[in-house]
Amino acid sequence: MLSFEVTATDGRARRGILRTAHGVLETPGFFAVATRAALKGLDPEGAARAGIGAVIVNAYHVHLQPGGPAVARAGGLHRYMGWEGVLATDSGGFQIFSFKHGHVADEVKGRRHAAHPDEALLVDAVTVDEDGADFKSYLDGSRHRFTPESNMALQRDLGADLLMCLDECTPFHVTPAYTRDATERNIRWARRCLEAFDALGMAERQSLYGINHGGVYPELRRLSAAAISELPFAGMAIGDCLGETKRDWYGVVDLVVPLLPEERPRHLLGVGEPDDLVEGALRGIDTFDCAMPTRIARHGHALLRGRPRFRLDLTQAGRATEDGPLEDGCDCHTCERYSRAYLWHLFKAHEVLAIALTAEHNLRFTARLLEEVREAISAGRLADFRRELLNRAG
Amino acid sequence: MLSFEVTATDGRARRGILRTAHGVLETPGFFAVATRAALKGLDPEGAARAGIGAVIVNAYHVHLQPGGPAVARAGGLHRYMGWEGVLATDSGGFQIFSFKHGHVADEVKGRRHAAHPDEALLVDAVTVDEDGADFKSYLDGSRHRFTPESNMALQRDLGADLLMCLDECTPFHVTPAYTRDATERNIRWARRCLEAFDALGMAERQSLYGINHGGVYPELRRLSAAAISELPFAGMAIGDCLGETKRDWYGVVDLVVPLLPEERPRHLLGVGEPDDLVEGALRGIDTFDCAMPTRIARHGHALLRGRPRFRLDLTQAGRATEDGPLEDGCDCHTCERYSRAYLWHLFKAHEVLAIALTAEHNLRFTARLLEEVREAISAGRLADFRRELLNRAG
Repeated sequence: MLSFEVTATDGRARRGILRTAHGVLETPGFFAVATRAALKGLDPEGAARAGIGAVIVNAYHVHLQPGGPAVARAGGLHRYMGWEGVLATDSGGFQIFSFKHGHVADEVKGRRHAAHPDEALLVDAVTVDEDGADFKSYLDGSRHRFTPESNMALQRDLGADLLMCLDECTPFHVTPAYTRDATERNIRWARRCLEAFDALGMAERQSLYGINHGGVYPELRRLSAAAISELPFAGMAIGDCLGETKRDWYGVVDLVVPLLPEERPRHLLGVGEPDDLVEGALRGIDTFDCAMPTRIARHGHALLRGRPRFRLDLTQAGRATEDGPLEDGCDCHTCERYSRAYLWHLFKAHEVLAIALTAEHNLRFTARLLEEVREAISAGRLADFRRELLNRAG
Repeated sequence: MLSFEVTATDGRARRGILRTAHGVLETPGFFAVATRAALKGLDPEGAARAGIGAVIVNAYHVHLQPGGPAVARAGGLHRYMGWEGVLATDSGGFQIFSFKHGHVADEVKGRRHAAHPDEALLVDAVTVDEDGADFKSYLDGSRHRFTPESNMALQRDLGADLLMCLDECTPFHVTPAYTRDATERNIRWARRCLEAFDALGMAERQSLYGINHGGVYPELRRLSAAAISELPFAGMAIGDCLGETKRDWYGVVDLVVPLLPEERPRHLLGVGEPDDLVEGALRGIDTFDCAMPTRIARHGHALLRGRPRFRLDLTQAGRATEDGPLEDGCDCHTCERYSRAYLWHLFKAHEVLAIALTAEHNLRFTARLLEEVREAISAGRLADFRRELLNRAG
């Protein structure tokens, strides 16, 4: 079971400690994304060395392969994937419904490309009814069905510390009426998830988060926040469509956070650019997850302060003669051992080692940024820290 | 400078210690292949954890990218690629001339595919004269020339502990007269390499190996062995065409080893299947190098005793339900943490982590096998060990 303690505040921002059966996550904290029960290109030791204390796995992908029973047989995801820290599972609702709604949903979450080439085939392969959702496997076309009850049983098999309710995630371009229907159904599904979670006796080892929905519509966000706050969820996630721009999601979070119970941890789903972490923390978010640090590493992009969008392209010709580390002063394994010139060489030579080395830096960058955020909260100067960070990013 | 000490013998087999400025390699010992200054998919920590104490880099590939000056600027290959153990560089002669002679040369060394898709373009792009060899870059088509002198200067820039002479490696299908010409020229080039090595003052930090040539022709092998044994090389490599079958190379090694100076270490170039290591050790070989353990990992193949060709295909459907480790009793990082079922999942999901985990097992398998070979030599039972190993592999 999870416990959460706030140790310092700075305006709405708060610093705290999230305790689980698999260790502790200091907050504001970060879940690295291990979609298919593996971090992209990096082993658990590398992630832990980077200061990453938590990962989030996607129950939808793991359901399709290798399946909940295969993971249960191994003793749960921690043992299956060799991760000893805090572990969360997303329900997979986002994946199902982003396929349904196509690329717009990807844009909402800053995911402009399908995670798998075959996923593009799956648009319109999803049907939702009151009871649950039918969908096709992007691996073999087989038919599957998630209900709140079956999804909780799946997440029990996976054995994560933190679980998300099954939900439908609406994209920006649907009608307000569609979003209202989905938001109301998500509330009913949240109740059913909680009942199944209790009936399956999962509370002994696992903790369930409720998810706030309502798209960009304030009255729907309020309705959802009131409903899930009444239910005994261990934590509260903010999900669904967060709008088209960063200002949109700032607005959603500004609206929702004060409506959530103070004592419960708050997770912002699928958001984690460097500036997002600071903007979210300022607004009272405790935890984040985002695939970006490992995803951009595959394309040769490293996270770096003082650069546009915090990005450095390691594949550019100029890197070939830069003998210094990727980031001056960075204490990551990669920066302590390798030069930009070597990373450039590895990417040009198509050596897969390049991905691991860059991913580890990007995760360390993210972990270090949140260390500074926590320090800034304790010092009561998070707003100043934001200003300094964003000015340097130019 | 290198020193070599024999600590036990068993027939022609011998156990020993090779000491360099960057640590010690117990022999019979193995050089993992880091062609382009990186092990395929694995970081140096993983290789060291697997018990690998030495790597060999290809000077030809590194010359084309990033180039000797870039590596020299970084302080040499050890620093450039983060490798703290023993490091060798092959001259690159094999690569140049295998391109010249096409796929037959690949077969000779058990390399059935070009290492890079563009390399296929380079057949007939090489010309050899008495002074050196001209070749085209497979990266950009630019013209390059290696002479014994320029190749030594390159290998000085790379800063490895052990160096190989520039040589022409003849394939099986050329005429005996061609092989004779090449063998005689290789002897002249060996003398020039040694002179350049001395003139460049490399002997303080580096050690040069001479290479025995002569294809499958006993009189040419003898001629070459006599000539290079007279020269003050730190070690002796057996290279060139070793024939079409394993029996062919057994014959070459059986012929050549007694002709080489006892006190110098003997390296067999490009050979390292599990049975090869034992057969080579029995015949008095001290060190081996082979890309196979990391290369087959990329294709989902793991090394395992008691299997045909010591191979297990991790991508086969049957693996999906095998919850035990890749190899029972293996102490490698992968076997201690992950199941075959998880490795199957990673390969099916195209997770690059699969490559690193399998490569580390394959290197550990190779290192452990050589540990047993060394113990068997000390116990005077290497022939028995061979019989036991090959019966199990049947």
